Amino acid sequence: MSRSDKYTIGLVQMAMSADIEDNLKRAAEFVREAAGRGAKIVCLPEMFRSQYFCQREDVELFNLAETIPGKSTMTLGAVAKELKITVVAPLFERRAVGMHHNSLAVLGEEGELVGIYRKMHIPDDPAYYEKFYFTPGDLGFKVFHTPQADIGTLICWDQWFPEGARLTALRGAEILFYPTAIGWHPYEKEEVGASQQDAWQTIQRAHAIANGLFVASVNRVGHEVFNEGSDGIQFWGHSFVADPFGVVIAQASDDREEVLVVEIDRARMEDVRRNWQFLRDRRIENYGDLQKRFID
Amino acid sequence: MSRSDKYTIGLVQMAMSADIEDNLKRAAEFVREAAGRGAKIVCLPEMFRSQYFCQREDVELFNLAETIPGKSTMTLGAVAKELKITVVAPLFERRAVGMHHNSLAVLGEEGELVGIYRKMHIPDDPAYYEKFYFTPGDLGFKVFHTPQADIGTLICWDQWFPEGARLTALRGAEILFYPTAIGWHPYEKEEVGASQQDAWQTIQRAHAIANGLFVASVNRVGHEVFNEGSDGIQFWGHSFVADPFGVVIAQASDDREEVLVVEIDRARMEDVRRNWQFLRDRRIENYGDLQKRFID
Repeated sequence: MSRSDKYTIGLVQMAMSADIEDNLKRAAEFVREAAGRGAKIVCLPEMFRSQYFCQREDVELFNLAETIPGKSTMTLGAVAKELKITVVAPLFERRAVGMHHNSLAVLGEEGELVGIYRKMHIPDDPAYYEKFYFTPGDLGFKVFHTPQADIGTLICWDQWFPEGARLTALRGAEILFYPTAIGWHPYEKEEVGASQQDAWQTIQRAHAIANGLFVASVNRVGHEVFNEGSDGIQFWGHSFVADPFGVVIAQASDDREEVLVVEIDRARMEDVRRNWQFLRDRRIENYGDLQKRFID
Repeated sequence: MSRSDKYTIGLVQMAMSADIEDNLKRAAEFVREAAGRGAKIVCLPEMFRSQYFCQREDVELFNLAETIPGKSTMTLGAVAKELKITVVAPLFERRAVGMHHNSLAVLGEEGELVGIYRKMHIPDDPAYYEKFYFTPGDLGFKVFHTPQADIGTLICWDQWFPEGARLTALRGAEILFYPTAIGWHPYEKEEVGASQQDAWQTIQRAHAIANGLFVASVNRVGHEVFNEGSDGIQFWGHSFVADPFGVVIAQASDDREEVLVVEIDRARMEDVRRNWQFLRDRRIENYGDLQKRFID
């Protein structure tokens, strides 16, 4: 398909309440705002329909899951069609009885379901009990061909794995979207909060550098105390876009809802990849052991 | 073997003249300085014996190559033995008639050759014509077991490849040494110099983060005009050590010879890897396509 030299993306950094219908309504409003400001591909944060429920393990919370297609994809698909844009909608997916994924749906300009990605790398840390809820993704790493660009999609914990970024880049992605839900434990924020946020941005900037493509990371904000008696998670926002040499070209606040609208210039990717030809020099015949857990 | 909780490393950031004997003599002096300040593992910059000759393609320059073992390893091996330390000595290796590598020798506390590593990823850019000089390494990725620590060694251009860092980490490295020769083209320094140096440090900090280990990068300094009429390369120094969460714990200047002596605390690696268990969650069964050049 014929594409222009530039395209515009929108990153919706939002806070979620306990009202899942209101979250959907507000997400749709933010998508409209992004489109109104020129965005043609708009990405929402990880599992935007609800608060980050993985703060505890509770089988009742599987009620939050929905099918794909389902209510969220119908609602946002209609918005995508009306506005003639692509929407990346991260959802808690109910696939079968007792089988759930941390997924995202890509909704196209005709409102159609372009495809889904299921989070491949599943964390499990205090207050991020994801291994309880989510079956690891079985669709592999994905690129979706939209009218604007070939977009790669990954989700949150995936962002710590160079392998995921590389495999998505090798499939032809021009940009990686990382919808995310990451924040501080208030009890340790003062001591380690700055280094955590910096490491998080650094490794994603490095994916941009290693692969010569854009990276757009879309986080939620807000202090969610999901369990009574806990001090919850303070989601750190800081959604950003890095260019193919890791330069941060747009960045949101740590604590406010914001829609970042950013123009992406393909010429920058062409320039960086010509001058830093990492993809030329990979020693693929020596990479077989990457399929090992450890080389004892 | 029994090891203490901490060990001390030395990074020699030096400038090279056209006098290869003087470079060796000065390198030995810097190693002595590092050891005198407590370093037990000392790393020299990439191909420290000479100026960075890859600025032009000239078969006469193969005369700069030497065998391993050879004069440099004999000289530095004797220093290592005298001081009871490990020395990482990067050399232009003559392996056979017409076969040369960009290598490094690890010299042990008895002066012995512990082993060699041959640069796996070979660049070729204006004034960095390495594909002309160096046969790509055929020893794979390496870890050396020294009395102080299990050290991984990579060389310069390797630092842009997450695969090299990962494979070395999976072999048990606690720290990655990256002897380097990277600098600015004076004609573009003002425009892109800052972003180049930042990308270089960012991607190496990301290797530390992704793999939960220390990274020590050892660059040369000095403005070397190797070809008459060219404006040469201004090597940017900036040697540094990053901890297992990517925090820079020591850093040299951009333009002066310096010996960085840095204490490494194993407890930090234990702490980071327990709290950020990336190695637990790799999806190794889905990484096979990393052995492909591109996934068309």
